[in-house]
Amino acid sequence: MQDKGVLLIISGPSGSGKGTVVENLIKDGDYILSISATTRNPRNYEKEGEHYYFKEKNEFVEMIETGGFIEHACFCDNYYGTPKKRVEEKLAEGMNVILEIEVQGALQVREKMPDAVLVFLVPPSIKELENRLKGRNTESAEVIESRIKRAVEEIELLREYDYIVVNDEIDNAVSKIDTIVKTEKMRPFRNLETIKKLKGEI
Amino acid sequence: MQDKGVLLIISGPSGSGKGTVVENLIKDGDYILSISATTRNPRNYEKEGEHYYFKEKNEFVEMIETGGFIEHACFCDNYYGTPKKRVEEKLAEGMNVILEIEVQGALQVREKMPDAVLVFLVPPSIKELENRLKGRNTESAEVIESRIKRAVEEIELLREYDYIVVNDEIDNAVSKIDTIVKTEKMRPFRNLETIKKLKGEI
Repeated sequence: MQDKGVLLIISGPSGSGKGTVVENLIKDGDYILSISATTRNPRNYEKEGEHYYFKEKNEFVEMIETGGFIEHACFCDNYYGTPKKRVEEKLAEGMNVILEIEVQGALQVREKMPDAVLVFLVPPSIKELENRLKGRNTESAEVIESRIKRAVEEIELLREYDYIVVNDEIDNAVSKIDTIVKTEKMRPFRNLETIKKLKGEI
Repeated sequence: MQDKGVLLIISGPSGSGKGTVVENLIKDGDYILSISATTRNPRNYEKEGEHYYFKEKNEFVEMIETGGFIEHACFCDNYYGTPKKRVEEKLAEGMNVILEIEVQGALQVREKMPDAVLVFLVPPSIKELENRLKGRNTESAEVIESRIKRAVEEIELLREYDYIVVNDEIDNAVSKIDTIVKTEKMRPFRNLETIKKLKGEI
């Protein structure tokens, strides 16, 4: 029997570089990204099953009630959630599955799936975060300020995470996260087959 | 302030290759080995402060009573223990300290120092362990049999450990353990300075 894959949760403030790090991790085929479901309307460029699974509200609520989500939350009147089925299937196949979610969702997942590995990605400094957000040139000064405030709040919660990874340089951060997953594969509870084999050969 | 070193506990059956793995880890200067104290008589080749700290029984008992040991045990009427002072000093200096101790001692350490990282080194199979023990040509068939029996008992307890490392090949096992320690350095509680710095720069 194949040992299960690792459920890897990556959180971090807007501007920490989560998106790029995740893109790099999935490039080599050792990781797949979980796709969230949402009740909000698709944006122009967004494709069903690629960016999100778009659901009607009643459909979403029914999925909540039948335990179809690992975690879910409601922001600005829209529901967002991680459907359980595909994640569990891929883990059983031995794939590492990435959830890119925010702190509250991450802590929900840990309750339901205690084997999940929680990684918090941080910028080298809040100053650097501010520079990155300003450099994007997509958000107003007000939005940037509220993101910085939120980042500081989130950093308070990062002690709940298993690992903190400083994203000073993308390749570096990607390799650190990959090392974390390889190390997690050496946990005894992920090596029940190895242990059985060891004992069985007496 | 320097972040603390990692207290690394390595256990594993006789014949798992612990000694060689530890020798390789300390070679590069990133790790030091803790030296045990004992009340047993030194063997010909053994040097005070290199193989053991040799103590009188009353001296040893006094150290137990004053909390001078991280762990201690009594085998065949002799006491063995890990003196606390040097370990704590070296960890505070940022050094990684290795304790090469057996399972019961390891679990005692975990109670007193919950940040300790427990690694269990196993041979690829029990058959391989038997071959290694026989290959040494230093133990009688009876002793080998009792070591195998003990190994199987210890393997039952390895689920209490943080990591299992299969020693198929020395370099491989050494590099896996080094990776574990590097990964453990990314734990939030070992990065309080980084977190403070992040928050302080607001």
